[in-house]
Amino acid sequence: MLVYVILVYDVDVKRVAKVLKIARRYLTWVQNSVLEGELTPSQYFQLKNELRRVANLNEDSFIFYVMRTSRYSEREIMGVQKGGWETIL
Amino acid sequence: MLVYVILVYDVDVKRVAKVLKIARRYLTWVQNSVLEGELTPSQYFQLKNELRRVANLNEDSFIFYVMRTSRYSEREIMGVQKGGWETIL
Repeated sequence: MLVYVILVYDVDVKRVAKVLKIARRYLTWVQNSVLEGELTPSQYFQLKNELRRVANLNEDSFIFYVMRTSRYSEREIMGVQKGGWETIL
Repeated sequence: MLVYVILVYDVDVKRVAKVLKIARRYLTWVQNSVLEGELTPSQYFQLKNELRRVANLNEDSFIFYVMRTSRYSEREIMGVQKGGWETIL
């Protein structure tokens, strides 16, 4: 069972590069501090673990919106389209 | 019929205050450049129109994730919880 994940993060500037490098191995970058994509539950678990290791959870903030199906959701863009897009949502 | 909206935006620093002021009248601020909440379709339409008037759509980027039901999605936070939260998701 795949899940559709949207990750938004707000991390200290000195950790952004490391966080982005990890997140890009799992998800598609779509906008500043926003990535999304389809993951297996175990990939989702691994992504969180890897991010935990490089982040400072007393300062940094990660929000994962996890959708068990993307059937009831869509994405609407206004203005510049910055990143690549999954075809799913 | 209500929809659940997650707004992420990446706008020029000189327009951030105006954009945030408008968005906060409709949604709950949860993290840097991220707001979410439940809207009627007409509120969602008005929000987009108001943002369009203050933004420069050749430079700024808005992504709206619109969920017709939040039954199949949840939010997971890792690290610091920055904003207020809707109880819905």
